[in-house]
Amino acid sequence: MELSSLESNFWAVAPGVIGAVGLLFSAFFYFRVKALPEGDATMNRIAGYIREGAMAFLVREYKVLAVYCAVIAVIIGLTLGGLASGSFVLGAFLSLLAGYIGMKAATYANVRTAQAARTGSKPNALLVALDGGAVMGLAVAGLGLVGMGGVYYAFQGHSQLAPILHSFAVGASSIALFARVGGGIYTKAADVGSDIAGKVIENIPEDDPRNPGVIADNVGDNVGDVAGMGADIYESMVAALVAAMAIALTANATELSRLVVDPAATTASAKVAGVVLPLVLSAVGLVVSLLSIFIARAFKHLNPAQVLRSALILPPVILVGLSFVMMQVFGLSQNITVALAAGAFGGAIIGLVTDYYTSSTPVQRIAEASITGAGTNLIRGLAVGMESVGISMATIALVAYIADRALGLYGIAMAAVGMLGGTAVVMTVDAYGPISDNAGGISEMSGLGPEVRAITDELDAVGNTTAAIGKGFAIGSATLTVIALFSAFNLEVNHTRIAAGLPEMSLLLTNPNVIVGMLLGSILPFLVGASTMLAVGRAAGAIVEEIGRQFREIPGLMELKADPDPKKIVDIATKSALREMIFPGLIAIVAPPLVGWVLGPSALAGLLAGALMVGATMALYMANAGGAWDNAKKYIEKGKLPGHAKGSQVHKAAVVGDMVGDPFKDTSGPGVAILIKVMSVVSLLVASLIALR
Amino acid sequence: MELSSLESNFWAVAPGVIGAVGLLFSAFFYFRVKALPEGDATMNRIAGYIREGAMAFLVREYKVLAVYCAVIAVIIGLTLGGLASGSFVLGAFLSLLAGYIGMKAATYANVRTAQAARTGSKPNALLVALDGGAVMGLAVAGLGLVGMGGVYYAFQGHSQLAPILHSFAVGASSIALFARVGGGIYTKAADVGSDIAGKVIENIPEDDPRNPGVIADNVGDNVGDVAGMGADIYESMVAALVAAMAIALTANATELSRLVVDPAATTASAKVAGVVLPLVLSAVGLVVSLLSIFIARAFKHLNPAQVLRSALILPPVILVGLSFVMMQVFGLSQNITVALAAGAFGGAIIGLVTDYYTSSTPVQRIAEASITGAGTNLIRGLAVGMESVGISMATIALVAYIADRALGLYGIAMAAVGMLGGTAVVMTVDAYGPISDNAGGISEMSGLGPEVRAITDELDAVGNTTAAIGKGFAIGSATLTVIALFSAFNLEVNHTRIAAGLPEMSLLLTNPNVIVGMLLGSILPFLVGASTMLAVGRAAGAIVEEIGRQFREIPGLMELKADPDPKKIVDIATKSALREMIFPGLIAIVAPPLVGWVLGPSALAGLLAGALMVGATMALYMANAGGAWDNAKKYIEKGKLPGHAKGSQVHKAAVVGDMVGDPFKDTSGPGVAILIKVMSVVSLLVASLIALR
Repeated sequence: MELSSLESNFWAVAPGVIGAVGLLFSAFFYFRVKALPEGDATMNRIAGYIREGAMAFLVREYKVLAVYCAVIAVIIGLTLGGLASGSFVLGAFLSLLAGYIGMKAATYANVRTAQAARTGSKPNALLVALDGGAVMGLAVAGLGLVGMGGVYYAFQGHSQLAPILHSFAVGASSIALFARVGGGIYTKAADVGSDIAGKVIENIPEDDPRNPGVIADNVGDNVGDVAGMGADIYESMVAALVAAMAIALTANATELSRLVVDPAATTASAKVAGVVLPLVLSAVGLVVSLLSIFIARAFKHLNPAQVLRSALILPPVILVGLSFVMMQVFGLSQNITVALAAGAFGGAIIGLVTDYYTSSTPVQRIAEASITGAGTNLIRGLAVGMESVGISMATIALVAYIADRALGLYGIAMAAVGMLGGTAVVMTVDAYGPISDNAGGISEMSGLGPEVRAITDELDAVGNTTAAIGKGFAIGSATLTVIALFSAFNLEVNHTRIAAGLPEMSLLLTNPNVIVGMLLGSILPFLVGASTMLAVGRAAGAIVEEIGRQFREIPGLMELKADPDPKKIVDIATKSALREMIFPGLIAIVAPPLVGWVLGPSALAGLLAGALMVGATMALYMANAGGAWDNAKKYIEKGKLPGHAKGSQVHKAAVVGDMVGDPFKDTSGPGVAILIKVMSVVSLLVASLIALR
Repeated sequence: MELSSLESNFWAVAPGVIGAVGLLFSAFFYFRVKALPEGDATMNRIAGYIREGAMAFLVREYKVLAVYCAVIAVIIGLTLGGLASGSFVLGAFLSLLAGYIGMKAATYANVRTAQAARTGSKPNALLVALDGGAVMGLAVAGLGLVGMGGVYYAFQGHSQLAPILHSFAVGASSIALFARVGGGIYTKAADVGSDIAGKVIENIPEDDPRNPGVIADNVGDNVGDVAGMGADIYESMVAALVAAMAIALTANATELSRLVVDPAATTASAKVAGVVLPLVLSAVGLVVSLLSIFIARAFKHLNPAQVLRSALILPPVILVGLSFVMMQVFGLSQNITVALAAGAFGGAIIGLVTDYYTSSTPVQRIAEASITGAGTNLIRGLAVGMESVGISMATIALVAYIADRALGLYGIAMAAVGMLGGTAVVMTVDAYGPISDNAGGISEMSGLGPEVRAITDELDAVGNTTAAIGKGFAIGSATLTVIALFSAFNLEVNHTRIAAGLPEMSLLLTNPNVIVGMLLGSILPFLVGASTMLAVGRAAGAIVEEIGRQFREIPGLMELKADPDPKKIVDIATKSALREMIFPGLIAIVAPPLVGWVLGPSALAGLLAGALMVGATMALYMANAGGAWDNAKKYIEKGKLPGHAKGSQVHKAAVVGDMVGDPFKDTSGPGVAILIKVMSVVSLLVASLIALR
């Protein structure tokens, strides 16, 4: 085969077809999980509450988002045309669909995992949770490929291909933002609220059936860590693809010639190769991920931690190998493989660093610091979070450096594609976490006894670590994607300016417009961080009040003679989350066009750069500090700090750290990470509109 | 008068002379304070401990810094010549001298303030504390002007003027860094350590004479908030002056022509005006500040809060008026006044914003959040800190925008000079804080009774707010100064490159070297934040242990029959602080030349930009969150939260927040703020050495 064969219809259609195959496997796992036994009546009642609450949230959230989508679709339609508008709606719709499928599966898998644990089989319980997660993982990657591949196939020769692709990404991104922030506020408000009302004020254990907030807490795991995370990772994949494709679309002959080995290759062929490769490599990533999932399933009898870690490490390695072969076959430069490998292995390093900071010595030190109280626990935890930024960001810098040396800015985009090669597996393992967490909650509330709880607890503990690794991947790939999107934005602006006979915009660091933009950009992550923290605080406060009211006013509740009213809590959490997600969401979507319109494209470029530096570091800091606090608390609960068991003063100090860490790691940190991505795709979309300001 | 008169010796010599006059007033206040009555034997014994501990720390710190200075002086001597080396030593020496004088005065003023309060006169107590602070304030501004003015006078025609000025700034900066970080670790380790051992573990009140850590806590106020803060503000002033002078020195004819009204004015005259004006305006600022101090003294009978706030607001207003007159007289552009005014009023706005976040509604909300425990107190406090970044940074962006529109990058530097116009007053009011805090501690330990304590408490509470305002000023001016220094760095690099026949370095935001530099730069504030937080945690831990040992092992201590051994605690704090200040200090000094040498000047420019965005926002976040937590605790202690008095569970939750806020606001926040300044001046110094990489 040679380069020009990439121009054939086969390669344009293959990614979408492979995506569809992924969706078939997703359906297979869905029905497989649903057919499993679902336990006794109590378990089913509780699982029903959770499913109902989760679906109710999703439906109400989707109504709000439908209004948002309608407004934006009209604006895009008026400024960029109907095709772009339709593409935006498609990008948004597929994101919502992925969230819906994944959450439905997760709320079937949770109770079936508990049931498998009830029969005493850890491997079977692991398998159910993993299969439940795979529905989401394959749906996310499959819909991403079907959507992007389909749009590319339909419009590959169209003059409006660029705005159509950008609009698709904006659809995916803005849904991801709202889903992540809304879900994040929901899950942590319910978590913190139930903990304060139950553990802190009433001194009853976690997941106690008397606590009406426990159902909402379990609903939150689904809407935040499944639906929210799914939309986030779907968006990452789409954004990385769009960044690489957009750079290839605007690249000139010299830049394109770096992609090919044969100096006689035509620029047109090289351009098609540059545009189609990200899709093709992502499709290969999906195949590899699918393999990985089946390998993990085959080794279900091994230690769960090892099984899941291997599932995460395997895909990048295989992907890089296959990329090497493909570049040889097509006569493309192996520098593409170098850039891809830098991203893939960089992601693994960031994962390992995150793993270290959230489960190793630093966690032990935080636990020990709890001996002198909550103050020292917090000081230590904040310091751990700050320190963790170092190696992760240095790794990202190194990846960017290598990828740039290999292939310039296109290389940086390919590094992001490489880091996200294992999207399906990463998302599978991520969704596995809340499923086993839910399984534990259902076991506790149904009174299934300590042996069952021991199995679900072990599965859950592994999920915590893999969740931290997943967050590291997400933030690392976000940073690379944003750098690539940033370059695509600049190319787009200058393209428009040159076409209008204007000079290129000045992107010099000494340009005061750039500096003012950077100063303004550095504010935004803090505003999103503040508003999401406050949102969780406010919503949790309302939940604490309502739980307290139920404890006081429902006769016989504390004596286990009456049932609590969990629906009331679910309702409060839903309303709060939907109300509170608006402001941070609007910041991300309104700031770029506003700054671009008022201060011009140079200031907007500065805004993106400032937001990226502050946002990427803040997201790592918050995610890792939160993960470390959580595991420090668990460290004490496992009795690893001699003389300070669960329930001791020292444990209570660690609970305070965990409480602060909850919104840090699951609301504000992810919210800030997604902020910078949304800002970048929105900027790319409006680039041509503000280019002449 | 006309422009060329600025070239006369009179204007070159005036700043130094006015600086010397400032020093005479500093001496006047010093001897005035020392001559006041110093109270009874117990008060004197305690004050003696504090003075002894503070001086012992300073002497040991200075020994360490002498070694550092010797090493750097040799390196500078070998690379940039003997004059630069000498200038570095002078800059460092004057910083140390300012710290020494100020701290000596503060440790005399504290006990005399307590004595004045003991006689029942609040106005007299206010006066003593204010006079004690004025010694430091006038010494800092006076030595700054004498030093910079003297160096400029001596070398005004010298070809090596630029490196000589830069070296002076590096001397001032690096001492400031170590003094601020070392002092910050000392004061917060002693504060947190005594609080945990006393308030948390033993449940005895603050400043209780049985607690051996109380002396160290009071020593810490002096070494951190007097000597450390003094070195910091001295450095700010020097750096702002150097930035403006350096830009004027490298400016071309077109840029210089913007400074003058008369189009016939020679470039040489305009250049001299540009170089000498920052010094002259700072000298005017010192005169205005001196006036302000005397006006404040005259109104001592009014409410202390009003007196101090007016003292801070007055100088910028008068300075701007005088600048207007001067520009008219010399035929200089009123755009200089515009830039100066933007900085001066911008500083006031940042001060008011800081005041709001650390003493108004947000504080009340943090106090209320304590009702549901330490977790919600912390979530709220972190959110307040994040939110506070918004308006402050937006103000800085606006100031930069106006100053740039008025006069380009020179305008930004002049805005920094304008913001620091009231240095002497700001430092006076800043040093007033720890003096009245110390007076309270001495009153408590000497058993002077509640009436005396009520007076010192009121003075102290005002000091807290003014300290927050001072921090806002410091961070705001630091950001502007760094932007100006950054420009000076770029001019210097390109100057060298063009002289060597190379093209200018690429400072495009899309240059991968710049991006990699920015990613690396964004890490550094987090590393300094982490290492200083950990340092405080570690040192506080050692202090808690030693206090616990004394409580257990000194017979009769808890029954007030035996005295504790405060010197042991002072010794631990001293050793820890000196050991722990090394790593963060070295980051700031080593990172710029290292990155510049390995990755080149573009990457170094990126490093500075990344560190600036993250550092400025992190510093504001940490300083304001810390101030808000502190005052939320005080809010509860004053009984403003009905039903939750001092000692209640709610108060204990607020104490946790305050404990976390302590290193945030007094160690890590200021450490990060000074990091970005030191990195900038070091970069400026090495610019010519790495320009060709």
